[in-house]
Amino acid sequence: MAKVRRPLDRCPVALSLDVIGERWTLLIVRDLLDGPARFQDLSESLAPVAPSVLSSRLKRLAENGLVVREFYSDYPPRAKYRLTDAGRDLRPIVGALYNYGRKHLGHRTDAQPT
Amino acid sequence: MAKVRRPLDRCPVALSLDVIGERWTLLIVRDLLDGPARFQDLSESLAPVAPSVLSSRLKRLAENGLVVREFYSDYPPRAKYRLTDAGRDLRPIVGALYNYGRKHLGHRTDAQPT
Repeated sequence: MAKVRRPLDRCPVALSLDVIGERWTLLIVRDLLDGPARFQDLSESLAPVAPSVLSSRLKRLAENGLVVREFYSDYPPRAKYRLTDAGRDLRPIVGALYNYGRKHLGHRTDAQPT
Repeated sequence: MAKVRRPLDRCPVALSLDVIGERWTLLIVRDLLDGPARFQDLSESLAPVAPSVLSSRLKRLAENGLVVREFYSDYPPRAKYRLTDAGRDLRPIVGALYNYGRKHLGHRTDAQPT
């Protein structure tokens, strides 16, 4: 990686963190990389996340074009959240976090090191 | 990547985010991947980070064994911060954030897309 000393507002790392650096956001992405999910699915998987926080993070992800909400029932209205192509491009970031956790924090997980 | 549905306290992604998910932490790592740096160097590079926040993040990184403080002058005491081997293993995470930013947020940077 090239030496990075741009001002933060033009640094690709900082810009990425502006978009997905808030607490919970990458964990939502982690779940959605497995496929679309309902709000309730995410809320259960990511407990103890507060519904207001989950809602805020999903809204931000949608505003940034990383997630779309799709209705699969009109009445009653039911929606699922799905990653866009740009959202799926976050996989290497989640993958790098996963690999780091397995290697360095694996004693706290039930995962066997690869 | 395998389907991840472990409780958050045993998920490698969540554990990694617990350690390096706070605002500014990965930007400090970004800087230190280029080599050791003084507090003042980091403070200037990461402006407008507050000194108290920078200090708190460096302390947390040290507690987690990712950064060490090395004195290069006894009097007056002067120290540099350096990544440990475990800290340097964060490079793929920073690299993935960099690549994502270049590809998707490049219009906000002065970087040319690769």
